[in-house]
Amino acid sequence: MFTTNTLVRVRYAETDQMGVVYHSNYFPYFESARAESIRELGMTYADMEKAGVIMPVVEVQCRYIRPARYDDLLTIKTILKELPLHHKIEFFHEVYNEQEVLLATGKIILYFMKATSMEKTVMPETLKQHLAPYFS
Amino acid sequence: MFTTNTLVRVRYAETDQMGVVYHSNYFPYFESARAESIRELGMTYADMEKAGVIMPVVEVQCRYIRPARYDDLLTIKTILKELPLHHKIEFFHEVYNEQEVLLATGKIILYFMKATSMEKTVMPETLKQHLAPYFS
Amino acid sequence: MFTTNTLVRVRYAETDQMGVVYHSNYFPYFESARAESIRELGMTYADMEKAGVIMPVVEVQCRYIRPARYDDLLTIKTILKELPLHHKIEFFHEVYNEQEVLLATGKIILYFMKATSMEKTVMPETLKQHLAPYFS
Amino acid sequence: MFTTNTLVRVRYAETDQMGVVYHSNYFPYFESARAESIRELGMTYADMEKAGVIMPVVEVQCRYIRPARYDDLLTIKTILKELPLHHKIEFFHEVYNEQEVLLATGKIILYFMKATSMEKTVMPETLKQHLAPYFS
Repeated sequence: MFTTNTLVRVRYAETDQMGVVYHSNYFPYFESARAESIRELGMTYADMEKAGVIMPVVEVQCRYIRPARYDDLLTIKTILKELPLHHKIEFFHEVYNEQEVLLATGKIILYFMKATSMEKTVMPETLKQHLAPYFS
Repeated sequence: MFTTNTLVRVRYAETDQMGVVYHSNYFPYFESARAESIRELGMTYADMEKAGVIMPVVEVQCRYIRPARYDDLLTIKTILKELPLHHKIEFFHEVYNEQEVLLATGKIILYFMKATSMEKTVMPETLKQHLAPYFS
Repeated sequence: MFTTNTLVRVRYAETDQMGVVYHSNYFPYFESARAESIRELGMTYADMEKAGVIMPVVEVQCRYIRPARYDDLLTIKTILKELPLHHKIEFFHEVYNEQEVLLATGKIILYFMKATSMEKTVMPETLKQHLAPYFS
Repeated sequence: MFTTNTLVRVRYAETDQMGVVYHSNYFPYFESARAESIRELGMTYADMEKAGVIMPVVEVQCRYIRPARYDDLLTIKTILKELPLHHKIEFFHEVYNEQEVLLATGKIILYFMKATSMEKTVMPETLKQHLAPYFS
């Protein structure tokens, strides 16, 4: 299992008139947490994309347990439970506030695809090598 | 079953550098489609909220089948399969482009809650009366 | 002078915890109003971009006079006061609510640029021909 | 003069199909930079709002000089040139990338207002005391 924690400060722009973070704004939090997660492995998603592999999102889920609020310093946990064998990768996320209360959980499924041909591909070899030690 | 169709034009702001609509931007489309759906029943969500009942989103799902693109005129189908008995309501959504190709499907679960006490409540009686004919 | 009016319904996602439309969300309204404005001339910005001319925004201004609120049906007025001679085009916007009260005014400056070389260019000839009658 | 620097990492969600940060997404960057700026003084905007003073944005300006791109680690400079005497406060912003190239400049004017009565007010005394040393 590979797990990372990323801090995100809630912006005013992300709240709605209910006084809480609007539900769809958790997904950019998850996205930036995944990016930081890859960065901790010594790579960047940006580089991967420049090398011709893109990762479109094909499915998302999110459960909202307690509201996140303006200026909350959230911890976004990113969990990779399995090393992907094929074109599909599944990330789990958990959102905690500063009191370590669980606010939301999410699941994001992405594909590895070649940017030029838009054909499914597999995880780039270098990323796989960085991740492998966490799954043996 | 109660079903409505709402047109949404994709904004440039909603695309990302993959040249497609960013995945979280479907949720505001779904939200506006639900609002239009309630409006077609002769009410508004805004009025419901002013009357003290709010509908926080407690769970979302979305599957992305084909990308939506800038300036696409999307049809967002809103489907209510069951009249809710308790505090929970479940909406299904389908997204079609102008060629009537299915681009995405979604499911949104919301609660009826009292704005002042934040206690669970049931669907306001007037909304129920407007919906009932579609489920008999 | 070339002027168009575009209707935009405020989404819940666009409000903030002050109970009003968050200030930056007026710019996507302006953007979609400009797109509709070009569409009324019988063209689309999307087509222009496919033909190799992009229009990056180089300067924006907005004054907020009265707040726009959730579910407001806004009229976004788009005003082109002068036919651009060079690579620069200046749009003015006004935002009105259903009571025809002026809520905000904006100014957006964009450049015409070649997508491939990122060199400044001028307004595509076809768009100019469609606009010319309004300025003679 | 009171000046602070805040780091912001560009999210994928904030890019558009031109491959750059969409123009309106600089304003939430500015907003979070102002929030961090107040935090460095030992206060928070969130607390100020809880104490009954809100700061609606009444005017914004932004000039885009060079594009910001996905995953760029931006420095948002926040500059307060004058200590506000009345209900109005003016912030200047500058955006730099990691190569210290200036990408954009902005100006945001906000009012101090009482949340309950929506009447104009002045800067809370405690904030003024924290700021005063920078202007003497």
